[in-house]
Amino acid sequence: MDATAKIILRKGAQHRVEAGHPWVYQTELDTVEGDFAPGDIVDVYNFRRRFIGRGYINPRSQIIVRLLSREQEPIDREFFRRRLAAAWQWRQRFVAEPEYCRLVFGEADFLPALIVDKFGPYLVIQTLALGIDIYKDMIVGILEEMFNPAGVYERNDVPVRGLEGLEQRKGYLRGEFPTLIEVRENGIPFYADIENGQKTGFFYDQRENRAVLKDFVAGARVLDCFCHTGSFAVHALRYGAEHVSAVDISAPAVELAAKNAALNGMESRCDFQVANAFDVLRALSDERRQYDVVILDPPAFTKNRGGIEGAARGYKEINLRGLKLVRPGGFLVTCSCSYHMDRDFFAAIVLDAARDARRTVRQVEYRTQAKDHPILPAAPETNYLKFLVLEVL
Amino acid sequence: MDATAKIILRKGAQHRVEAGHPWVYQTELDTVEGDFAPGDIVDVYNFRRRFIGRGYINPRSQIIVRLLSREQEPIDREFFRRRLAAAWQWRQRFVAEPEYCRLVFGEADFLPALIVDKFGPYLVIQTLALGIDIYKDMIVGILEEMFNPAGVYERNDVPVRGLEGLEQRKGYLRGEFPTLIEVRENGIPFYADIENGQKTGFFYDQRENRAVLKDFVAGARVLDCFCHTGSFAVHALRYGAEHVSAVDISAPAVELAAKNAALNGMESRCDFQVANAFDVLRALSDERRQYDVVILDPPAFTKNRGGIEGAARGYKEINLRGLKLVRPGGFLVTCSCSYHMDRDFFAAIVLDAARDARRTVRQVEYRTQAKDHPILPAAPETNYLKFLVLEVL
Repeated sequence: MDATAKIILRKGAQHRVEAGHPWVYQTELDTVEGDFAPGDIVDVYNFRRRFIGRGYINPRSQIIVRLLSREQEPIDREFFRRRLAAAWQWRQRFVAEPEYCRLVFGEADFLPALIVDKFGPYLVIQTLALGIDIYKDMIVGILEEMFNPAGVYERNDVPVRGLEGLEQRKGYLRGEFPTLIEVRENGIPFYADIENGQKTGFFYDQRENRAVLKDFVAGARVLDCFCHTGSFAVHALRYGAEHVSAVDISAPAVELAAKNAALNGMESRCDFQVANAFDVLRALSDERRQYDVVILDPPAFTKNRGGIEGAARGYKEINLRGLKLVRPGGFLVTCSCSYHMDRDFFAAIVLDAARDARRTVRQVEYRTQAKDHPILPAAPETNYLKFLVLEVL
Repeated sequence: MDATAKIILRKGAQHRVEAGHPWVYQTELDTVEGDFAPGDIVDVYNFRRRFIGRGYINPRSQIIVRLLSREQEPIDREFFRRRLAAAWQWRQRFVAEPEYCRLVFGEADFLPALIVDKFGPYLVIQTLALGIDIYKDMIVGILEEMFNPAGVYERNDVPVRGLEGLEQRKGYLRGEFPTLIEVRENGIPFYADIENGQKTGFFYDQRENRAVLKDFVAGARVLDCFCHTGSFAVHALRYGAEHVSAVDISAPAVELAAKNAALNGMESRCDFQVANAFDVLRALSDERRQYDVVILDPPAFTKNRGGIEGAARGYKEINLRGLKLVRPGGFLVTCSCSYHMDRDFFAAIVLDAARDARRTVRQVEYRTQAKDHPILPAAPETNYLKFLVLEVL
C-alpha cells in the first residue's frame, strides 16, 4: 500500500521521531493533508516538510502513527517478507536455539505492535494495533512460507487492543493442535500453555539470564519467589541445586511449574507453593531462614510513570527481605521488568536494601533482556528488563 | 596488626562509608584518638561512635584511610590469606580459564590498592598505597604458598604511588624469567610484555566482551581502532573475519599486535598501522570506506570529572566517524574505560552520533568489565568499563 495522507508534525515535536523513535503522538500533529481511513499508511514530515518516515495511522489511539519505514517504500507483502526475514536472520545469528525464540519483537524489529513467538513448529502471534492487525493474514501467509509451521495460534486476548478499538480474541489461525507445547530454553525442556498461559505462554526474555545460574547454584538451597511456570527453578535444579523452594500466587502457574520439574525428573528436589511471595518472604525472614541463593523475579510493579514510587517501595521490601534470607557468601538474583523503573534507580534500591540489611554486596551480573528481544536505543521502551546478580557477604 | 588509633568521622560524612565504600577522605575526619604512624591499621567510627570498619591510614594521601574490613579482626597473615583465597575462589567460579586472570582487583576484593594479575605460572603485582605496600612481602609469601608460581614481577612504576609518598619501581620479586609471557584469553594465545607493556602488560577486563565478536565477525572486513596489542583484532580473525585493519599510536603495541597475529597464524589476513586513530578515522570516512565491523576501544579520554566535556567530544567524534564507516547491516563495537563517563551518558553520545550520521542502530550488547574485575556497587569507581555493540542499519 502507498501512503494516503501527509502528516506534518508541529515545530519542536520532530526530535524524538527523527532520532529513531517509531511513535507519533496525537499531540505532536500540526496538520494532515489528504484523506485517510483508520489503519491506512501515511507519510510523516517535520515542520520543514522534510520526510521522516512512513507508517500506519489510527486516530483513535494516543499513538496516532507508528512508523514502519524511514523510506518512501511500498508497504506491501514484499516489505513484510523482508522485515520478517531480517528478524529471523537476527535470531539465527544471536540465539543459540532459534527454533524457540521471540521471532518478532514489535518496534525493535521495525514491525510496531507485532509479536511473533516461535515454539518449535508452532507460532503464536499478537497484533496489538489496528494498522498491523490489518496485515495479520498476509503476515501469517509469509510465516507459513518461511517456516511451514505445524500451527499458528493467535493470542490477541489483551486489553491493550482496546486502546486501538480492536476486540480481544484468541484461537487457531492455522491448524488445530494441543496447546500445551513442549519448548526448550538453554537446551532444557519446558511446557508452555499457549492458550491460557500469560501473554503468549512463555517468557523467552530471561533465556541468557537463566543460563547465568550455572555458575553459582551447584549444591545450593534455593528460594525462588514469583516462580511463574518454574523456569528459574528448573534451571537451578538442572544446574545442580540441592533443593529449590518456589512460590507463586497463581495456582495454574505453580501447577505447570511442578509439571516442568517432573518433565526434567527433578520433582524430588523441589517444592512449590501457591502463595503471596511478599507474605512468604516476611514469614521466612521472621523465621531467620537462610538460603544459598534467593531469586526474585516479580511481575511489573508498575505499568506507568505514576506508579514508580509505589513500585520502588515494593522492590525495596522484597529485596530487603530477600537479602536477609541469603547466607553470607550466597547470591541474590533480582529482576525488574517494569520499563518505567530506571536501571540505575533499580540498582540503587537494591543497594539501599543491602545497607538496611547491613550486608555488603558485590555485583556478578547486571544484564538486560535476551537477544531475541532486541533493544532500539532510540525507543527506550524497548529496553525494559533488569537482571541483577549479587554476591551477598 | 591491631588498630593503633581511632578515627572519628564528622557528622554527615559517614553515609558513603557506612553504605560500603572503602575510602575515607581527609575532609571527612573529625578527631583522631591515639597515635599512629603512616601505614598503620586504624579503626573508623561515625560521629555517634559506632564502629564502621578497620583499615590502613596514610595522612599524606587525600584518601586518608582505606578500609580492609568491617569487623574488628586482626589484620595479619591469616587475614590476607583468607582475602586472597576468597579472590581465587571467585575467579575459579566465574572465569572459564582462571589460570589467566586478574586475581585481585583492589577495593572490589576488599584489598584496597592491591592488584595481582595471574599469567599462568607467573604473577604480576601492584601495591598502589602505602598501607598495602607494607604487606607486599607477606602477600607475595602467601601467593607463593597458594600457587607455587614460577615467578613474581612487581609493576609499581606508576605515578599514582607518588600521591602516597611511594617511589616508582619495577622488577623481579621472585625468580628471574623472560618477561614476554604467553597468556590465553578465551583459549586464544597472546604475548604479554609484563616488563614494558601498559599497566601489568595485558588487559583481561574485556575477556567476555571479546568473545562476543564471535556472533558477527565471520567473513567480515574489520577496522580495529586503538588496537593496542591486538586482542580484539586477533579474536576477530580467530572467529573467522576475512580481514582486519588495525591502528594504534603506540609502535611497541602495534609490534606486539603483529606478533600476536603471527602467533595465531593470522598474519596474512591483517595489517597493522602505527597512526593516530582520530586521523585514520577521518581519512577513511573522507574516502567513504565501508567495513562490516568497526571496533573503537580508545584509552580513557578523561581521568577526572573536569575532563568529561572534552572526553564527550572525543567519543562523539570517533563514534560519528566509526558509524559512517559501517556498511548498512554491519556492526559497531564501541568502548569507554573512563569511570567518569557515565554509562547512560556514553550510550547517549553514541546515539547522538548515530542521529548525526543518519543511521538507525540496534543494541546487541551493552556490557561492562570481565568478571575477574568484580564491581562493588557501593564504590562506583569499581564499575568503569562500557562495551556497547550496535547493529548499524
